[in-house]
Amino acid sequence: MNNAKLFGQIKEKGSFLCIGLDTDLKKIPPYLLETEDPQFEFNKQIVDATEHLAIAYKPNLAFYETYGAKGWTSLEKTANYIKERYPEIFLIADAKRGDIGNTSKMYAEAFLKNMPFDAITVAPYMGEDSVSPFLEFPGKWVILLALTSNKGSDDFQHIINVDGGNRLYQEVLTKSQNWGNKENMMYVVGATRAEKLEEIRKIVPDHFLLVPGVGAQGGSLEEVAKYGMNDSCGLIVNSSREIIYAGNDENFAKAAAKIAYDKYQQPMNNLLIEKGLLI
Amino acid sequence: MNNAKLFGQIKEKGSFLCIGLDTDLKKIPPYLLETEDPQFEFNKQIVDATEHLAIAYKPNLAFYETYGAKGWTSLEKTANYIKERYPEIFLIADAKRGDIGNTSKMYAEAFLKNMPFDAITVAPYMGEDSVSPFLEFPGKWVILLALTSNKGSDDFQHIINVDGGNRLYQEVLTKSQNWGNKENMMYVVGATRAEKLEEIRKIVPDHFLLVPGVGAQGGSLEEVAKYGMNDSCGLIVNSSREIIYAGNDENFAKAAAKIAYDKYQQPMNNLLIEKGLLI
Repeated sequence: MNNAKLFGQIKEKGSFLCIGLDTDLKKIPPYLLETEDPQFEFNKQIVDATEHLAIAYKPNLAFYETYGAKGWTSLEKTANYIKERYPEIFLIADAKRGDIGNTSKMYAEAFLKNMPFDAITVAPYMGEDSVSPFLEFPGKWVILLALTSNKGSDDFQHIINVDGGNRLYQEVLTKSQNWGNKENMMYVVGATRAEKLEEIRKIVPDHFLLVPGVGAQGGSLEEVAKYGMNDSCGLIVNSSREIIYAGNDENFAKAAAKIAYDKYQQPMNNLLIEKGLLI
Repeated sequence: MNNAKLFGQIKEKGSFLCIGLDTDLKKIPPYLLETEDPQFEFNKQIVDATEHLAIAYKPNLAFYETYGAKGWTSLEKTANYIKERYPEIFLIADAKRGDIGNTSKMYAEAFLKNMPFDAITVAPYMGEDSVSPFLEFPGKWVILLALTSNKGSDDFQHIINVDGGNRLYQEVLTKSQNWGNKENMMYVVGATRAEKLEEIRKIVPDHFLLVPGVGAQGGSLEEVAKYGMNDSCGLIVNSSREIIYAGNDENFAKAAAKIAYDKYQQPMNNLLIEKGLLI
């Protein structure tokens, strides 16, 4: 999957929505618990109902690991189902991995080779040799944490470097451009700091940004587009709980599709038109 | 598991060795590949042969995830085997997780509640609310990345904060002391920077430090002890590949035990005596 294909899908669907599959057995419709693989069944129905509205899905690894090997099987089935049925979908493993070189290599193989993910989120703390093993798979992507949407992002990400005056997240954006490029690297930038996107676009004008925090976490889609959209859209906006838990009965997938359409795809389509990206 | 129990085990065994279970099917004795669960079988034999020489084991998650649900099953079996057979052992999930609060909570449950790990390694980039959910399990530990042993640790960990003059890893050590304490938090400090341990001990005099990088990565055990040992030892030194891949035939576990004894437990015993911690 390259930058142009991703933009092609965005134009075709009039959407830059990623749906986060934070699939929690305590929150899914109870009737699904009687199926053989409730996590997979839930994901399958959500994806089938929303695939025309979203360009990406993002299983959150924690929600599968917590169910052990069984959860991992549900994850694998979900990933395989999506890529077999909807090969154009950009499939993100939200795993926030990162370790010394030989270990990052194993993580990279787990997600980008042994499973059909197109991308994986990676934490930057350990530096280049913890990130670069994920960049060795043609057509696959690293999505590096830069400025996250949570309160704790204040603790370290805003530290100002005495040498040059960059904040830590700006150092991450700047330095990592020597490791990858706009065809294999994106950045996580939280929507709760939408105004920061303007400044971030000066450092990474061409890279895609994965933007969590719209919806349940309070970020504004309009502000994200205003400050962050570039000439190839350059945005993948994620929403998880607000969409996938919109309903809690047999019609949950329809309810999810309605929220995805009303609150995301339609506004996104309009924002793309305003920007002159849809003809 | 509390600080005093850990120190008790160190005194009893004359060792502060952690053995890293980076169990790679390409590196284990080929005859094991014919067993039903080669990763578990390898780990079981390593643990049975070395448990009197080590106080901790540290499965590296990447090496299990790369084999999917099957690898996860091997991990669960390994963790359960160790805690059932050797309950005094300090069992570390080397997972380097860290995400927004509700996701970190799921990771914490996966490792500290659903599996019997005593501790998990956590990355600090996302700050307090990404770390604190791991601290909510009595008797369990967070091992927070501070100064890692890899080359990439130069990229961000040494950035000097314009406000106060601390380097990033010093900020992590300082700030995180408000989140946990010496009974539920340790720090990763790489042995390849042993001289830094002296300065780190001024910030965290009482906390345990998990020290990777001795052995295959080139760090010196003597220097680590010289600069890092405190009155309760305060060190857990990890070695992975050098020990577990010491042999490659039916006697591999004996070969591992010989390296663990000669290069780690015996020198560690002497270092503990020199420090006056063994009577």
